[in-house]
Amino acid sequence: MSFIRPDQRLPDQLRNIDFQPGFAPHALGSVLTSFGNTKVICAATIEDKVPGWMVQQKVSGGWLTCEYSMLPYATLDRKRRDISRGKQDGRTVEIQRLIGRALRAVIDLSRLQGKTLWIDCDVLQADGGTRTASITGAYVAAKIAIKKLLQKGAIAQDPFRDSIAAVSVGLFKKKAILDLDYQEDSQADVDFNIIMTGTGKFVELQGSGEEATFDREQLEQFLALGKKGIITLTQKQQETLVNTL
Amino acid sequence: MSFIRPDQRLPDQLRNIDFQPGFAPHALGSVLTSFGNTKVICAATIEDKVPGWMVQQKVSGGWLTCEYSMLPYATLDRKRRDISRGKQDGRTVEIQRLIGRALRAVIDLSRLQGKTLWIDCDVLQADGGTRTASITGAYVAAKIAIKKLLQKGAIAQDPFRDSIAAVSVGLFKKKAILDLDYQEDSQADVDFNIIMTGTGKFVELQGSGEEATFDREQLEQFLALGKKGIITLTQKQQETLVNTL
Amino acid sequence: MSFIRPDQRLPDQLRNIDFQPGFAPHALGSVLTSFGNTKVICAATIEDKVPGWMVQQKVSGGWLTCEYSMLPYATLDRKRRDISRGKQDGRTVEIQRLIGRALRAVIDLSRLQGKTLWIDCDVLQADGGTRTASITGAYVAAKIAIKKLLQKGAIAQDPFRDSIAAVSVGLFKKKAILDLDYQEDSQADVDFNIIMTGTGKFVELQGSGEEATFDREQLEQFLALGKKGIITLTQKQQETLVNTL
Amino acid sequence: MSFIRPDQRLPDQLRNIDFQPGFAPHALGSVLTSFGNTKVICAATIEDKVPGWMVQQKVSGGWLTCEYSMLPYATLDRKRRDISRGKQDGRTVEIQRLIGRALRAVIDLSRLQGKTLWIDCDVLQADGGTRTASITGAYVAAKIAIKKLLQKGAIAQDPFRDSIAAVSVGLFKKKAILDLDYQEDSQADVDFNIIMTGTGKFVELQGSGEEATFDREQLEQFLALGKKGIITLTQKQQETLVNTL
Amino acid sequence: MSFIRPDQRLPDQLRNIDFQPGFAPHALGSVLTSFGNTKVICAATIEDKVPGWMVQQKVSGGWLTCEYSMLPYATLDRKRRDISRGKQDGRTVEIQRLIGRALRAVIDLSRLQGKTLWIDCDVLQADGGTRTASITGAYVAAKIAIKKLLQKGAIAQDPFRDSIAAVSVGLFKKKAILDLDYQEDSQADVDFNIIMTGTGKFVELQGSGEEATFDREQLEQFLALGKKGIITLTQKQQETLVNTL
Amino acid sequence: MSFIRPDQRLPDQLRNIDFQPGFAPHALGSVLTSFGNTKVICAATIEDKVPGWMVQQKVSGGWLTCEYSMLPYATLDRKRRDISRGKQDGRTVEIQRLIGRALRAVIDLSRLQGKTLWIDCDVLQADGGTRTASITGAYVAAKIAIKKLLQKGAIAQDPFRDSIAAVSVGLFKKKAILDLDYQEDSQADVDFNIIMTGTGKFVELQGSGEEATFDREQLEQFLALGKKGIITLTQKQQETLVNTL
Repeated sequence: MSFIRPDQRLPDQLRNIDFQPGFAPHALGSVLTSFGNTKVICAATIEDKVPGWMVQQKVSGGWLTCEYSMLPYATLDRKRRDISRGKQDGRTVEIQRLIGRALRAVIDLSRLQGKTLWIDCDVLQADGGTRTASITGAYVAAKIAIKKLLQKGAIAQDPFRDSIAAVSVGLFKKKAILDLDYQEDSQADVDFNIIMTGTGKFVELQGSGEEATFDREQLEQFLALGKKGIITLTQKQQETLVNTL
Repeated sequence: MSFIRPDQRLPDQLRNIDFQPGFAPHALGSVLTSFGNTKVICAATIEDKVPGWMVQQKVSGGWLTCEYSMLPYATLDRKRRDISRGKQDGRTVEIQRLIGRALRAVIDLSRLQGKTLWIDCDVLQADGGTRTASITGAYVAAKIAIKKLLQKGAIAQDPFRDSIAAVSVGLFKKKAILDLDYQEDSQADVDFNIIMTGTGKFVELQGSGEEATFDREQLEQFLALGKKGIITLTQKQQETLVNTL
Repeated sequence: MSFIRPDQRLPDQLRNIDFQPGFAPHALGSVLTSFGNTKVICAATIEDKVPGWMVQQKVSGGWLTCEYSMLPYATLDRKRRDISRGKQDGRTVEIQRLIGRALRAVIDLSRLQGKTLWIDCDVLQADGGTRTASITGAYVAAKIAIKKLLQKGAIAQDPFRDSIAAVSVGLFKKKAILDLDYQEDSQADVDFNIIMTGTGKFVELQGSGEEATFDREQLEQFLALGKKGIITLTQKQQETLVNTL
Repeated sequence: MSFIRPDQRLPDQLRNIDFQPGFAPHALGSVLTSFGNTKVICAATIEDKVPGWMVQQKVSGGWLTCEYSMLPYATLDRKRRDISRGKQDGRTVEIQRLIGRALRAVIDLSRLQGKTLWIDCDVLQADGGTRTASITGAYVAAKIAIKKLLQKGAIAQDPFRDSIAAVSVGLFKKKAILDLDYQEDSQADVDFNIIMTGTGKFVELQGSGEEATFDREQLEQFLALGKKGIITLTQKQQETLVNTL
Repeated sequence: MSFIRPDQRLPDQLRNIDFQPGFAPHALGSVLTSFGNTKVICAATIEDKVPGWMVQQKVSGGWLTCEYSMLPYATLDRKRRDISRGKQDGRTVEIQRLIGRALRAVIDLSRLQGKTLWIDCDVLQADGGTRTASITGAYVAAKIAIKKLLQKGAIAQDPFRDSIAAVSVGLFKKKAILDLDYQEDSQADVDFNIIMTGTGKFVELQGSGEEATFDREQLEQFLALGKKGIITLTQKQQETLVNTL
Repeated sequence: MSFIRPDQRLPDQLRNIDFQPGFAPHALGSVLTSFGNTKVICAATIEDKVPGWMVQQKVSGGWLTCEYSMLPYATLDRKRRDISRGKQDGRTVEIQRLIGRALRAVIDLSRLQGKTLWIDCDVLQADGGTRTASITGAYVAAKIAIKKLLQKGAIAQDPFRDSIAAVSVGLFKKKAILDLDYQEDSQADVDFNIIMTGTGKFVELQGSGEEATFDREQLEQFLALGKKGIITLTQKQQETLVNTL
């Protein structure tokens, strides 16, 4: 077949996936997550209190929240820090809400009673797919942190009900492809992020055709590619966790 | 069948949909959009310049952007204005980015050369589905504004390639239902927003299982319900526009 | 007499005054207030706590406060939202302080013990006199809310000691006129706002000659016109309240 | 008569009024203004450009603007700096707008073509009446600055058409009194600020009955007291300027 | 010797040093500090609580903190207020941290149990050395405030263990000089601030060669000059305090 | 001798010093700098414009500026991001100004004509001495970036006149020691940072006795220790650069 991706990958082929645990030793759990040249520092820390709104509204249980940031030198042109403008940009807000929501879908917050699990995702190098790498790595970092909390007896039971991973799919030169890098992403007509659990349930679909719309048949192709990618990512997560914990 | 929604609707039944054009007479186009008790003021105005980043990056064409806000008395408990905290909350940022992205998917920005079409969505009354009502009404307001620009000769061709509408679906008591009101939404396991064009193409799927995940079969049900809702919303939009323009 | 106002009104004639109660159904009390083409959504909501400074300084009683905002499409040229600049503009601050102060002059705060009555005034369409329309409508919205609190038994006695209304007067082409619209206001030499109670007491006079000063004789004319306008506005308020409560 | 003010003054008696020119030597014009124990540093500086909105809207002429601030140690209890909260408090905004508006009423901005005259009023000691002392001293500082600009040939004609001064009147123990100090102000029922020109024209009346309303007869008393105070303040201003320039 | 400073001073000669106590009468302690034409209002006030972080971290004792600000008319060209940009500039932050840290080095915070001593330094006129004048004057203001607290019995023992003063030294036309004014400072190669106690101990050395580096021999000259200046400043402080307390 | 540091180092012994070049591949120059367990990502990027104030004040040449940040998981207890409070904390401001000033002391800005060299220092792990590690690593990153600019012909001559490094010294249990780690720093009486060039000139001395003062003899010990440390750091920098460029 004549279709060739810029980096020679097959349409359904992920980039090199790598997790480097312990990357930020002062965090409870941490991992440098690589999806090819996209590299994200994922770190999980624990705080012995819950957000103010839970106290005010008397919501029991614990909480999990995420902060995402691009380090200014992650892109080829330096990206200004949010703090220099005094507020986060909209894209940052949207992504960190997505990551937090995704992880909360597979966690039983009642098992984190009175605690907040903070997930920080800082992009060291950006080459497309920073939000999917963040979610996939955030699970690994969080799971390591949870294991430590269990070992210390700080919590009694693992709050995770399932694992979670994410991958992008898109339409590139009219063809559905998996795990777009920056070059593909900037030329793609549709950018679709699929977030699924290790047991194959959907958590979130975030398909946006900024430049083009897509039809039902294309949706089917996206879901098939995404499922394939999630299966591989889940295996890599498990291998890393087995070797780490 | 024994399944009964709190307001007696059938599972695949929309709430009463209404568009009241000319609600904000100083806007170029405006409509009060009602999805049952959810009421959103949608207004479109034009500015004869493009955002700074387009000038800097020398991007040609025009732009469309959206701002969304809840009026403080839209909810039963007064909601603090964002300005009192000095920044928009994350939910607001996420929603207004979604609305803007959705409308840009069906518009040819080159036909707005040098102009910005502002879409403002202010929620007067919130009863679930404010983002889907906003998108659906925003299209009507924008289309009215475009018609006026064409009449004045300010632009040469209609930039809209298609119409656009949005509706929520969700899992309520294990059953897939269409267009959730607040009571249903707060008890639903999955909240799924479907944004489609008048010709049946997908623009964005935003399915989030904050409390539960969903499987492939449920996804099929969501898509079927959504398609049905979008068809009706598209008809209502067209009727309103025919009577207004 | 040869003096003619742009919209044919007599010098001492108000614009069409209208109050549409229940405009924002989730508020405790609400009214869409029209002074001609100036339309302001006035909404009153109650919160079961008082501001932090009252707690700190151990001030007993309740509180009434106001927030004023121009919806971005209220003016013919879209007005940027305050939140996009991260702070309220000075005019907004000045007006909302004026409205709050005015209403507090006719209310016995001890009868709102432990509660804050929030008044929100959002301008839907601006055609001059938004602050006088806001004050006049705010009283109606607040009074409806108070009535509901009395009915529910949430408060024991009506805290209002008097009614309150406001109207502008000004010097237009050397002649004193009542209730200026935007066209008149932008050409007027003096802009004078009179806030009075239903029983004819002064609450606040805010006369500012941004472009010209005024003498004692003109002040007399302003006060006479203002008194006349306030009497009519008070009647309209009472009619609305009788029909609503 | 048995009425005695806390500091023994007669009802129509000003506090000791003093202007100390050259207080901030790096300013073009400056004066330390004392109304009894209320002491305000008033400084006027010139900038060779006009505000952005004048450039954008192509408004010709110059501009005059004011910034007001309480030094944190001006009050007996230290008052937090606005910058520590990241925004000006509402009272500050309201007062500095009042001062700027007042001075603009007696100045011909066309004679400041292309320039902005900045008026800064920083309260060194607060004992009631800081806004009236600010306006009265701001005129003196501004006039000194204008004189220097004329001497340097930076402007061709004096832009001031008249002088301006301000004084408070109020109802204290049912009696109308002039120039309230903090003790009187905090017990007064009505606080009324009168801003007049040296030739006896009104510029602004800002009468607010935060706790009580006032009737027509009381208004007459306020105006008579205010006029008397303004005459004396105008004389003091002229004496200072004669000795300084 | 032929070396002549612009204002005729000898290389090791301070400018005229003056302290004017009681400059801000509502502060507990205050002094207008003059180092030649550099004039800084230094004021000390007390608050009966400690910062939030001390409460949270359960740190006992009291606290001393400083806020520094340039009044906008302190410089020949008006300097924008920090509040107009919504945040303090970096130089301001750096200086106020330096002043606070310097004073805390000679104070026993346990003797301020539960209290915060606020030091405010507002520059009325800037002519070089505002940070050294601030530190030197801040000690005088703080000491006056402490004396008053002791007299009132609000604290039991003087928390000051030593006095503190500061002076700048620098390389001007290759020669080491003491107490640089603005003209010298702007042409100096090295700007070095020395903070010492009355008993001759170092508190902080802040030597920065923004344009040039300096060697060991020059450092010796700086330290010798600084010591000489500090001795004189300490005497002036003591004289002022003896006459004031 | 019986004095033993917690980690067994000699008083004049640095921690393990390491530079890992190319750590952030999208930056022009980058290095992960380790001073023992303190790890800082130092990255240098170039922007083809100069700050606004240089344009306004018509200053020729280029600029070098620095931003410093602690990643939230760098400390054992998670440190809140500055952006979540909307402003940088004072310590951050102070440190990034120090780093920028230090590097500008050894660079000829005229050789960066029209460009800004951005230095970013993000602390991945904090164990004392983050500011000295930042300065020392920033030089390496900047030098790599400069080499690339020279190779590309973007600049004609190396702007660096000398190398620069920094190290802390302090009084720990009454003894002067070099390169304090967190445990030592938190128990030290004096914290003194020495910034010197490769040729042995001083750039900045920043000695602060937050809890104690120091005398002349101790200063001599600090300078001797610092000089020894700087010599070793300079050698390590040169070795890294030789191997990298």
